[in-house]
Amino acid sequence: MSTEYVAIKDIGAHANETVTLRGWLYNIRSSGKIAFLQLRDGSGMIQGVVVKAEVAEATWDTAKGLTQESSVLVTGSVRQDDRAPYCGYEHTVTDVQAVQIAEPNYPISHKEHGPDFLLENRHLWLRTPKQAALLRIRHEVMKAATTYLDDRDFLRIDAPIFTPSACEGTTTLFEVDYFDDKAFLSQSGQLYMEAAAMALGKVYCLGPAFRAEKSKTRRHLTEFWMIEPEIAFLTFEENLQLQEGMVTHIVEQVLKNRMADLKTLERDIAPLLNVKAPFPRVSYDEAIEKLQSLGHDIAWGSDFGAPDETVLTKLYDRPIFVHRFPAKIKAFYMAPDPERPEVALGADMLAPGGYGEIIGGGQRVDDADLLRQRIQDHNLPEEAFAWFMDLRKYGSVPHGGFGMGIERCVAWIAGIEHVRETSPFPRTIYRIYP
Amino acid sequence: MSTEYVAIKDIGAHANETVTLRGWLYNIRSSGKIAFLQLRDGSGMIQGVVVKAEVAEATWDTAKGLTQESSVLVTGSVRQDDRAPYCGYEHTVTDVQAVQIAEPNYPISHKEHGPDFLLENRHLWLRTPKQAALLRIRHEVMKAATTYLDDRDFLRIDAPIFTPSACEGTTTLFEVDYFDDKAFLSQSGQLYMEAAAMALGKVYCLGPAFRAEKSKTRRHLTEFWMIEPEIAFLTFEENLQLQEGMVTHIVEQVLKNRMADLKTLERDIAPLLNVKAPFPRVSYDEAIEKLQSLGHDIAWGSDFGAPDETVLTKLYDRPIFVHRFPAKIKAFYMAPDPERPEVALGADMLAPGGYGEIIGGGQRVDDADLLRQRIQDHNLPEEAFAWFMDLRKYGSVPHGGFGMGIERCVAWIAGIEHVRETSPFPRTIYRIYP
Repeated sequence: MSTEYVAIKDIGAHANETVTLRGWLYNIRSSGKIAFLQLRDGSGMIQGVVVKAEVAEATWDTAKGLTQESSVLVTGSVRQDDRAPYCGYEHTVTDVQAVQIAEPNYPISHKEHGPDFLLENRHLWLRTPKQAALLRIRHEVMKAATTYLDDRDFLRIDAPIFTPSACEGTTTLFEVDYFDDKAFLSQSGQLYMEAAAMALGKVYCLGPAFRAEKSKTRRHLTEFWMIEPEIAFLTFEENLQLQEGMVTHIVEQVLKNRMADLKTLERDIAPLLNVKAPFPRVSYDEAIEKLQSLGHDIAWGSDFGAPDETVLTKLYDRPIFVHRFPAKIKAFYMAPDPERPEVALGADMLAPGGYGEIIGGGQRVDDADLLRQRIQDHNLPEEAFAWFMDLRKYGSVPHGGFGMGIERCVAWIAGIEHVRETSPFPRTIYRIYP
Repeated sequence: MSTEYVAIKDIGAHANETVTLRGWLYNIRSSGKIAFLQLRDGSGMIQGVVVKAEVAEATWDTAKGLTQESSVLVTGSVRQDDRAPYCGYEHTVTDVQAVQIAEPNYPISHKEHGPDFLLENRHLWLRTPKQAALLRIRHEVMKAATTYLDDRDFLRIDAPIFTPSACEGTTTLFEVDYFDDKAFLSQSGQLYMEAAAMALGKVYCLGPAFRAEKSKTRRHLTEFWMIEPEIAFLTFEENLQLQEGMVTHIVEQVLKNRMADLKTLERDIAPLLNVKAPFPRVSYDEAIEKLQSLGHDIAWGSDFGAPDETVLTKLYDRPIFVHRFPAKIKAFYMAPDPERPEVALGADMLAPGGYGEIIGGGQRVDDADLLRQRIQDHNLPEEAFAWFMDLRKYGSVPHGGFGMGIERCVAWIAGIEHVRETSPFPRTIYRIYP
């Protein structure tokens, strides 16, 4: 906030000036004559150099006494040096002031730690360069997604979290004591977005969603974020174009604004440069044929497993749409293809590199009779869906939308293995701390 | 999406052209010779005029057969007319096609309905002009708030919803069955934002928060949205400046982009034009004196009631900060004023017009010993706050932040009485449907 302090990311505008930085000591290396301070301030990292012979004795003593993660104010001149680590600038230190000397037992040292230990210390783990880079990319992904939609006149309409009914079955619902009643935590805002689209045309929600899945795979969190646009008078092809446009924009923005973070993560950006619309459209039928020809034991009518998705996406150089799955394995609200009612007019977007489904979407059933039939076929409580039926009774229109999982999208773009690292404070079956 | 259709909000760019609009029939009035169609498409409302003598018989019959909320495609020429209702343009209709004829028993007629009935039909109530206007203003408020922070290099860091412990006491917590354990729904992301600020400098979260308050006042929802910035190395005065800057920006953006909606709501905009920084800073001591001099029965040490806030804000022409409340009535994490430890270095921002607190914020305790003492004094479980203590052990810095309630902010700016109308699908003690 203060003008007298400079953020490390803006250091390039202060070459040859004397500036004061404030942040935390990520690491210190020193001999008897020179100390290298690795300073982070949240915006970036820089190396400060303290030469004993060139600073006051008190300054040298302060620098030498700093422990890992001590908070400090560091004054010095900024020198451009392409060989300087982190940011291409070095800070020639003239003064160091400790704000607080960290206790010496800082849990996360610069050696390897196991994942459970790191998750237990997530509040501190966030301070390491790789985790900070992931969160900056997450920020960029969410910002790019909302900006893309806002620029196209979408309205953000927050879906409720407390819901009386299940969107897609009840086995993975979290139940809440709601005064003397019970409520469930939302798994998706989609149904509410359908109501909002009939009122406001083009809408989206962006919020947490909850699934009580006992799955322990690297793809699953009990709490995750989704962005779910829904549009009245939308065709299926327009839906796919919106999705590929949004994902392309997101990748472009990350490449434009977060290159340093991709570098920190050692992400090979070549595959990201391929992410341009249009994305290949692969029918479910074609996908099954391809998988069978590659020796996969999968029959028409089955859903894909993770290995199927991985093999399939390896055949392409960018995300793909797999469309027209068998209606039987898709949700009750998915519209049938009018030319072939046994398949759903929906698509999954699969990311390359084994990241699997990052978007699921499609057209919604807009006929009242068909929707009622589907609700019955799926043994869903009709009274809970009475309001949803109303949308078909009063001014039904062709419409569709999709949901993109933020964490999976970030994991793919960042090129990391575990989706849990893309969540600031990940929640899994075993963990709600810190 | 399609280029062949025009959104009503863009109608001005198509004067004297023939365009097709698509939307819903909000109302129809007709004589034997002329019909006035009130069409809404989510972006706006326009009047279409069908003259029997000038259209095909089938077109006239279709128009006459339309029920309220039927979905339609309407083609006609656009004529500017300052006297035309809604948007200053009229649509001289040449063709009408029904997409779906709404069932004739549409629940929400153009007469008055009671609030319970409207809330029960919230999925349809959203289609009325006033509710749509409120949601457009809500969108603008959230967008302006995030843009303000993003432009200042804040990072969005989502706080978890499942938490193991209470931020401010346990009596108003919702409990969730979490596999074989229990979890609580977050009341605030602040503590997590403190951890994130130590990692990333300037952060905010924007998400739902939950309070199981049995309160039935017009200010309370069980589920509401908050934006909570938190900043490392922040002073109290900088904190206040950030708040008034953000709120001023929000009001400016609503005035700039949502004037039509403010007009729909019959909002007197004069008080909004006064919302310029700086906002008056009123100490708690001064506030108590003023209230006492106005005959309020309130003693130093008590928190304000809604009537106190209303009277106090009437003395000013814009939002005010009331700062330095007695530490005893504020949360455990609030820093004491170093010059006067019995008061907290925090402030509430009170909106004019009886809307009460829209922001609460301040400096946080950054000393480990004092924080431990506070946790004990408040009978909070130390082990649940171990991670929060770590932030003071390892590189503690002066820091602060605030939380702004989205719904209260929208209610104030829109000038409406009931905060529940600012939530797309409001949740109260009695309602989780639809």
